[in-house]
Amino acid sequence: MTRKEIIELIGNKKSFLCIGLDTDPNKIPKHLLNEQDPVFQFNKAIIDATHDLAIAYKPNFAFYESRGVHGWESLTRTIQYLKSFNVFTIADAKRGDIGNTSQQYARAMFDEKSTGMDFDAVTVAPYMGEDSVKPFLSYPGKWIIVLALTSNKGAFDFQFFQGEEHKLFEQVLCRSKNWGTIENMMYVVGATQANMLADIRKIVPDHFLLVPGIGAQGGSLREVAKYGLTKDCGLIVNSSRGIIYASSGEDFAEKARAEALKTQKEMEEILSSIS
Amino acid sequence: MTRKEIIELIGNKKSFLCIGLDTDPNKIPKHLLNEQDPVFQFNKAIIDATHDLAIAYKPNFAFYESRGVHGWESLTRTIQYLKSFNVFTIADAKRGDIGNTSQQYARAMFDEKSTGMDFDAVTVAPYMGEDSVKPFLSYPGKWIIVLALTSNKGAFDFQFFQGEEHKLFEQVLCRSKNWGTIENMMYVVGATQANMLADIRKIVPDHFLLVPGIGAQGGSLREVAKYGLTKDCGLIVNSSRGIIYASSGEDFAEKARAEALKTQKEMEEILSSIS
Repeated sequence: MTRKEIIELIGNKKSFLCIGLDTDPNKIPKHLLNEQDPVFQFNKAIIDATHDLAIAYKPNFAFYESRGVHGWESLTRTIQYLKSFNVFTIADAKRGDIGNTSQQYARAMFDEKSTGMDFDAVTVAPYMGEDSVKPFLSYPGKWIIVLALTSNKGAFDFQFFQGEEHKLFEQVLCRSKNWGTIENMMYVVGATQANMLADIRKIVPDHFLLVPGIGAQGGSLREVAKYGLTKDCGLIVNSSRGIIYASSGEDFAEKARAEALKTQKEMEEILSSIS
Repeated sequence: MTRKEIIELIGNKKSFLCIGLDTDPNKIPKHLLNEQDPVFQFNKAIIDATHDLAIAYKPNFAFYESRGVHGWESLTRTIQYLKSFNVFTIADAKRGDIGNTSQQYARAMFDEKSTGMDFDAVTVAPYMGEDSVKPFLSYPGKWIIVLALTSNKGAFDFQFFQGEEHKLFEQVLCRSKNWGTIENMMYVVGATQANMLADIRKIVPDHFLLVPGIGAQGGSLREVAKYGLTKDCGLIVNSSRGIIYASSGEDFAEKARAEALKTQKEMEEILSSIS
């Protein structure tokens, strides 16, 4: 999916919402557990109920890997199902390894013939540097989303490590932004660090930012928009638990839609300031 | 596996060799391709031919994920097969995410009931800080192996980022070494950076180091031992391509054994200096 198509999607849906599919079999409604693939059935119901309100979906790989082979089956079914909707799909896998290994990870996420999975984007960790992320950029039309400033407490351990001119996360932005372009690279910036977005926009004024941490993690959408919004929107804001676990009853999909709609309405208002 | 057991294993086998199972279906001998699971059959033959010479095996997850569900099946079979030998098993997955997500990754690697996989150790990326690696430490008897200084060119992009007192990789060592103990934490230090090992030993004198980069990547075993060896050995040195792809013919396992034996003999000589 091209940058232009993402911007059109945001304009058409009046939304920059990404729904995180952190689907935990212990948290999904009990009545689904009789299904053959309860996790996929849950995801399908969430997607059916929200795809007009969300521009992106982000399965979190850990929640699938923790069920081994069966989890990968649910994940594969989910990405295949997502492909029938006009949405941007993000493999939240946070991979990164030496070049020849990252090539294999890129194939895992992007090469439908090899794995049945054909995501539009993958999250990658920057610690191992350029050759660890470049192989993902060799797939035309695909995106990498590099971890810059994350939404967790541990972000303070190393991401704020102070160099002569910059903190580490700023160094990651400064150096990596030339590895690709604004047409194939985004950054993860946690909503819990919204006040840092003003400084981040000085380094990457035009890149799209994937912003987790709204909802369960405590980030504020208004704050994120205040500091991070660009003329093209430039933001994809993720909510996972706050939407997908809005209810644990048979009305889970309906309640998820109600939560997504609430967020979409807030986003519509925010977007009206740039249209 | 405890630290004491690892040290005994090294003493008994007179080896600190880890064999990296970076098994690529495009590189394994053609005659195996008729098998039901060629990748597992390849791994099995390599393990059968080398388990008395190697103390550890390290499947590289990327090479399995790039085959999707089928790759995870091969991976699961491989770890289950490894469990019948007295070897230390490392999930080379380089994971790391916020706390509740890392819990799921830990389950994926360590909880046999959930996934059929029961590795002794997992490699983790430090960028997201303490809460991204701590969940792995809640499994008694399991290890995390934190990326410190990697063997690739991209290591120079951020790992050498200079702070007031330290470079980033030194900061990772200084701060993270208190998250666990020498009984449940190791570090990745690339053999291509062997000369850095002397300084690294000043920060982590007793931790085991997992050292990739011997062989195809150009690192020298002698150099690594010169700077990194401790009275308990303190090193697990990995070789992947140099051993497993020693031959592409029907004699691949035999040739892999010959390569492993060559390395083990060199290690035996090195170990004699501390016994």
